[in-house]
Amino acid sequence: MILVRPQMGENIGAAARAMLNFGLDALRIVAPRDGWPNPKAVAMASGAGRLLDQAMVRGSVAEATADLSFLLATTARARDLTKPVFTPRAAMAEARRRIARGEKVGILFGPERAGLENADLVAAQAIVSVPANPDFSSLNIAQCVLLLGYEWWLSADDTPGEALVLPDTRLAERGEVARFVGHLVDRLATHHFFWPEGKRPSMEENVVNLFSRAAWTEADIRTLYGIVRALSERPAAGGAGEARE
Amino acid sequence: MILVRPQMGENIGAAARAMLNFGLDALRIVAPRDGWPNPKAVAMASGAGRLLDQAMVRGSVAEATADLSFLLATTARARDLTKPVFTPRAAMAEARRRIARGEKVGILFGPERAGLENADLVAAQAIVSVPANPDFSSLNIAQCVLLLGYEWWLSADDTPGEALVLPDTRLAERGEVARFVGHLVDRLATHHFFWPEGKRPSMEENVVNLFSRAAWTEADIRTLYGIVRALSERPAAGGAGEARE
Repeated sequence: MILVRPQMGENIGAAARAMLNFGLDALRIVAPRDGWPNPKAVAMASGAGRLLDQAMVRGSVAEATADLSFLLATTARARDLTKPVFTPRAAMAEARRRIARGEKVGILFGPERAGLENADLVAAQAIVSVPANPDFSSLNIAQCVLLLGYEWWLSADDTPGEALVLPDTRLAERGEVARFVGHLVDRLATHHFFWPEGKRPSMEENVVNLFSRAAWTEADIRTLYGIVRALSERPAAGGAGEARE
Repeated sequence: MILVRPQMGENIGAAARAMLNFGLDALRIVAPRDGWPNPKAVAMASGAGRLLDQAMVRGSVAEATADLSFLLATTARARDLTKPVFTPRAAMAEARRRIARGEKVGILFGPERAGLENADLVAAQAIVSVPANPDFSSLNIAQCVLLLGYEWWLSADDTPGEALVLPDTRLAERGEVARFVGHLVDRLATHHFFWPEGKRPSMEENVVNLFSRAAWTEADIRTLYGIVRALSERPAAGGAGEARE
């Protein structure tokens, strides 16, 4: 990640944090406006201060990129340049492929106010452009680093899109659910829930359907039995109808 | 996007900007630490101040989410809760499906220091967790909003992963490339480039290969003809060997 002429130290620090969030640690900085080192960058980087200490700081993009074989440049604006334009996702997939075969890849990020200049863009092999609201597309340098870092991490991440976390339990089997619902229906009958009698079939279906939809766990079912028991024991329910397992 | 007990006004403003970057404008804020309105939020939001003016501000998560039918909660830590856990990408795909069928969807973002409390998490139907460096995974509230907003935008975005931008030109046809390379080889022969004669075939192949790899445009080919012409006309090349088209 190569920050080009960054203005605010806070943003350099935030960029370093964002890099470390996503497992990146090779930070390069070109001509920082307020000199280097920058105490505001250090304050903002907190846990990622090591990246600032180890950052390569150079006076020009040419010096900061001399050892790289593939150079990307981030810009929000489509320009009059003949260049491949990547999304962050495709760019990071490409970067990972190249790094896997031994290449050194860099990404240029432009300064806060104006972004990269055309002179920076033409030196890169390709452009990275973040898809965004065309009426309000400007991202600051640290946010742009965050998004590219995020896509870098995802390009090698296999977290499933949706997972059900089940600490110390398992999903209930349909038989367990059916037994609980049968128990509940019995309790409800004892407590004169199904009234008038003619509506009992549809009311019962309703209760079965209501408790059969959710993805209960075995622990949930135990809790539900406890809830039924506690409610059955309420003084208001009368002393006779108590249900104990 | 529902910011829960946010501490710093700057982060509220940055979150509003990030939302507008990605086409979101319904901001809700629960119990902001420094009261509301907050001038620091306004200063940071710049172009997205409208979102702050229109934000729903409430005292509790329950009040701020009462009208929603699907509630997600962001947290970096896996907890002892039985919940579906989504990646940002899968969560935003799910949110878009639900919104398309008329549901109202909200996402809770926790305060800077500690994130959402368990009491907030249990009220949500599902968790969103950003895949990140497990040793350094904490994102601030505005960064988290940025990443979710980005995935929201991408869930309806069809920007191709890689596109070649060709302003005012087209890719060169192989015949145009071959004609240029033939012209170049002729010029080089005139300038005694292929020496010794025995190596000419392999040197010629080398030149053809070098200029045949790149994805030249028709405009590039014209520029290349101009470069060959200019170099051929150099005083150093001698007056006799000039090549004019």
